[in-house]
Amino acid sequence: MLGVDGGGTKTACVAIAPSGEILGRGEGGPSNYQSVGVEAAEAAIAHAISGALAGVFEGRIGAIGLGLAGVGRSRDLEVIRASVDRLQQRPEFGDRWQLSPDKIAIAHDCAIALTGGVGANVGVATIAGTGAIAYGRNRHGATRRSSGWGYLLGDEGSAYWIALAGLRAAVRAEDGRSPATALTEAFRQHLELDNLQSLIELVYRRGLTVKEIAAHAAIVDRCARNGDAIALDILDRAADELLLATRAVFAPLFNPDEPFEVVTIGGAWKSQILRDRFCQNLHQIAPFASVIWPRHEPAYGAALLVLS
Amino acid sequence: MLGVDGGGTKTACVAIAPSGEILGRGEGGPSNYQSVGVEAAEAAIAHAISGALAGVFEGRIGAIGLGLAGVGRSRDLEVIRASVDRLQQRPEFGDRWQLSPDKIAIAHDCAIALTGGVGANVGVATIAGTGAIAYGRNRHGATRRSSGWGYLLGDEGSAYWIALAGLRAAVRAEDGRSPATALTEAFRQHLELDNLQSLIELVYRRGLTVKEIAAHAAIVDRCARNGDAIALDILDRAADELLLATRAVFAPLFNPDEPFEVVTIGGAWKSQILRDRFCQNLHQIAPFASVIWPRHEPAYGAALLVLS
Repeated sequence: MLGVDGGGTKTACVAIAPSGEILGRGEGGPSNYQSVGVEAAEAAIAHAISGALAGVFEGRIGAIGLGLAGVGRSRDLEVIRASVDRLQQRPEFGDRWQLSPDKIAIAHDCAIALTGGVGANVGVATIAGTGAIAYGRNRHGATRRSSGWGYLLGDEGSAYWIALAGLRAAVRAEDGRSPATALTEAFRQHLELDNLQSLIELVYRRGLTVKEIAAHAAIVDRCARNGDAIALDILDRAADELLLATRAVFAPLFNPDEPFEVVTIGGAWKSQILRDRFCQNLHQIAPFASVIWPRHEPAYGAALLVLS
Repeated sequence: MLGVDGGGTKTACVAIAPSGEILGRGEGGPSNYQSVGVEAAEAAIAHAISGALAGVFEGRIGAIGLGLAGVGRSRDLEVIRASVDRLQQRPEFGDRWQLSPDKIAIAHDCAIALTGGVGANVGVATIAGTGAIAYGRNRHGATRRSSGWGYLLGDEGSAYWIALAGLRAAVRAEDGRSPATALTEAFRQHLELDNLQSLIELVYRRGLTVKEIAAHAAIVDRCARNGDAIALDILDRAADELLLATRAVFAPLFNPDEPFEVVTIGGAWKSQILRDRFCQNLHQIAPFASVIWPRHEPAYGAALLVLS
């Protein structure tokens, strides 16, 4: 059984036994159809599958689950189904495929993150990496999502949002609009700037990418750990935002006395302060929710999906 | 006497008599050296000057004031001084120039906006167009500025900021993170979207420009005028942000009992709700400040600068 996690930067594949044991892992390039095109996406998936199968000497591929960023519209599904058909014809796989149509599962990236994270297709995934989104599914199969509108329209509480809030707080202190904060000096040093004015050159002319900006969430966390009130406030607000998205998802899906798990996925959660605050506040409004770290990777979740 | 307002989208020039009377006006293309290059910038300025002089049949050009976006570093000043020298050699002007070095004033765009807006080189300009910045100068010549860090790092309270806050509020309501708001339907209709999800396509893939997004501040104002609480809250917060920048400028420049004028410049101020709220709150913290609309255009301010 194969699980594929196809993203905009890379593709991961795991081969698992019916017992759930991982038999092999492989990686490939990006497989976002919309950006790289169908042919390159297929090649990336094939490469990841070959890697995952390299150590698996026996057996046929009886099932495949694919999770792909942005998939959801029916047109996407058709494109990917046709891709899976072509993948089975590729010479490198010989006669290893033995798929029946009900053994192919295609889902979007949040669905496999939830299923992998919880180890089952029920619960809530609150993802806070470069972007931020909450996605949930209950035992009746109803799903919800909230946030995830990208870095301009939303993604409140993401690493990008935290980093940008930190940069904004630093320049606000610099030009007299807010009290002094350790963020100003922390960013100046980390970015090796003579003065904060040079930020304008760096952000607009040199054009820091969204991912590059997001990486600076760690600076905000460091300042918060050292007790900076403004940095702490940013993490508090980020936790509030992530809770708001999480609540918008679980409230309509789960009964108030029904236990469910919330899996926290993504780099922003490395901040212990952020996660603690999130857990405390979640407990206030949903005492039956438990917050967990991911049990498995999304590619594993993709494989589980085909079982469910 | 000439005043030139050189910006990133166009260049404006006014010719004024020593009495202050406007004798002529001209326009040219963009004259931002850093973007269009020195040669194109000079040609745009020359074109604007020719236009302003077209109706002026007598007299020599004895003074010129230039205000240019982003000017401030000494290297910029040298480039522009050299440009002014070359402008005087251009054949279309014949022997009309009669400049002595002390009759050339070069300033940044905020300085001429303040001087034109107030009609004198003292006071505060609170600019809220696509971007937002406050700039002030007292009678001793001391200056301050606050905000104006561009659309990612700041510009809080600008038309872009208001429009984006409106879009964010619309999607927050859409995915269950906040109460319903008239903004959702207003944006959907105005942007002719089947659903708000299409915003993602519009904003990221088709890539709305900062200026295009800023134009939607009017939607937020319309919803606020119709009583929408969330739109009203956005304008309240915008007014607070603009006041914060204004205060950071006037507090160190003017004594608490010293009268001064605050000129409101830029498209965001078309919102009466925004401006009323700003005026009320400013009056609380600075009873001797009076808020005015611009008395003159920035190009006129550039001409005044050479007199001061």
